[in-house]
Amino acid sequence: MSAPVKEQLAARAAEVEGFLVRCMRDKGIPDRLLASMEYSLLAGGKRLRPVLVLSWAGMFGEEGIADKVMPFAASLECIHTYSLIHDDLPAMDDDDLRRGKPSNHKQFDEATAILAGDGLLTEAFGLMSAASIVKGLPADRVLRAILVLARAAGAGGMVGGQAVDMEFTGREGVTLDELRRMHAMKTGALITAACECGAILSGADKADAENAREFGRNIGVAFQIVDDVLDVVGDTATLGKPAGSDEAMGKSTYPAFMGLEKSKALAVDYVDAAHERLSGYFGPEQEFLWQLARYIVDRVC
Amino acid sequence: MSAPVKEQLAARAAEVEGFLVRCMRDKGIPDRLLASMEYSLLAGGKRLRPVLVLSWAGMFGEEGIADKVMPFAASLECIHTYSLIHDDLPAMDDDDLRRGKPSNHKQFDEATAILAGDGLLTEAFGLMSAASIVKGLPADRVLRAILVLARAAGAGGMVGGQAVDMEFTGREGVTLDELRRMHAMKTGALITAACECGAILSGADKADAENAREFGRNIGVAFQIVDDVLDVVGDTATLGKPAGSDEAMGKSTYPAFMGLEKSKALAVDYVDAAHERLSGYFGPEQEFLWQLARYIVDRVC
Repeated sequence: MSAPVKEQLAARAAEVEGFLVRCMRDKGIPDRLLASMEYSLLAGGKRLRPVLVLSWAGMFGEEGIADKVMPFAASLECIHTYSLIHDDLPAMDDDDLRRGKPSNHKQFDEATAILAGDGLLTEAFGLMSAASIVKGLPADRVLRAILVLARAAGAGGMVGGQAVDMEFTGREGVTLDELRRMHAMKTGALITAACECGAILSGADKADAENAREFGRNIGVAFQIVDDVLDVVGDTATLGKPAGSDEAMGKSTYPAFMGLEKSKALAVDYVDAAHERLSGYFGPEQEFLWQLARYIVDRVC
Repeated sequence: MSAPVKEQLAARAAEVEGFLVRCMRDKGIPDRLLASMEYSLLAGGKRLRPVLVLSWAGMFGEEGIADKVMPFAASLECIHTYSLIHDDLPAMDDDDLRRGKPSNHKQFDEATAILAGDGLLTEAFGLMSAASIVKGLPADRVLRAILVLARAAGAGGMVGGQAVDMEFTGREGVTLDELRRMHAMKTGALITAACECGAILSGADKADAENAREFGRNIGVAFQIVDDVLDVVGDTATLGKPAGSDEAMGKSTYPAFMGLEKSKALAVDYVDAAHERLSGYFGPEQEFLWQLARYIVDRVC
């Protein structure tokens, strides 16, 4: 495992965290609801999606771009967090633990967890608009990025992926192709959009935005495969949730289809494809993104 | 009851409905999830919020403004519909009926209902951005309207209002002032934002946008009082839900505080205040909005 990338990731995550700590305050949110939203929003995590926005914006943007895109970057963590809260609900995956702590509806209650998710999702779009209104990014860029993100996070993307995942759970005969499409919606779409939005917000041209998007698409798949592998080889303390829970839930996974070794090799293939999308660029952001992609598979290889 | 305004409202609602029928298609939404979203989105309703966007935009905008703001107007119905789906959930108000039909989680299942709500909320922001990207409205206006709407619909507005409402249910000693503030968040904020966004999207100046907002704020309160009154005096067939359900749930209402007659008189006062905000304008939109405000209280007076 490369030490520098882990430290860089932690440093950037800390910047995002600093913004997240403040961003829900002074909005007239009732106390208990605010506590519930912040409980999950500040429960740790790698802040991968905001970091991807910041890094791709940094690749193409001018000096100071990171500060300008920060509200937009933070909005992706709000969306990611809301999706985790709702996915954990009794009617969904019924998970009692998240990152080693009681899941939101266990810590608070079901109604509050549903509303905390709704609140985080809605505030996310307020934060996105603030990237222009407060930080001065061109309005047309921000609107294009909002459209990309709404599509990725919505019923044709992340939300739809969760619906398909629920249909698949316990169903016999799910094909690898169906599994791929489900993951592309459920986890891939938001990671892909993070990269593309970073590029769009920094004023990148179409070809650069496509490289960003395809980088995201490929690391998204790699990330999912590694998650499936970790569920088999990891332990509860490392995962922050019970190991082997996918199998217990009857979930289709890459290791179930092709075994552990082939799954790991496939993850490496996707990281290679992601690296190719970086080949035309130089500088510290290029290097960071290159190492970040590698770091994803380093967790298991 | 004034016949013309009812017909006009129905005609405008039909236009909104025509857009809503198409707007979720071709977005790659899984079949069952799409069916669930459309089940609630197309279950009828007065389409009051979109009509308010269209009318206030028509008041200040140029020829053809209604077509341009239609995606944004429709987005308010998506947000309103998602809030009804989530409010009906077992963990929230646990309502089996909505507009005389099984509520979403009864017709489908709880997980699908949660996801249908999440999907509608997310698509709403996609539709808002389309008002600029597809329809050509200036990007900065659309972004300002998105910010207004995100604040109104979010945890400091509608979502927060539902959280406070749940806290109040069955609690002794809720004051009239607390009730007012809860309603201002839960139902008032979105109606207020509909009017303000219509004005913003049409390029209205600050004073005009404030009149729109205050018109919305006042009819929002009137609307809520009338709803409380109808829950007492209406019957299940008219309401599409069991009459007297507020009392059965132990909810604080205006009639419980001040009786039916004083409640009705208060609703009329708010409509008068709304009418005052229209006094400086002329033309068909002014007349329609004037009659619309009156129509709200005509339902019970």
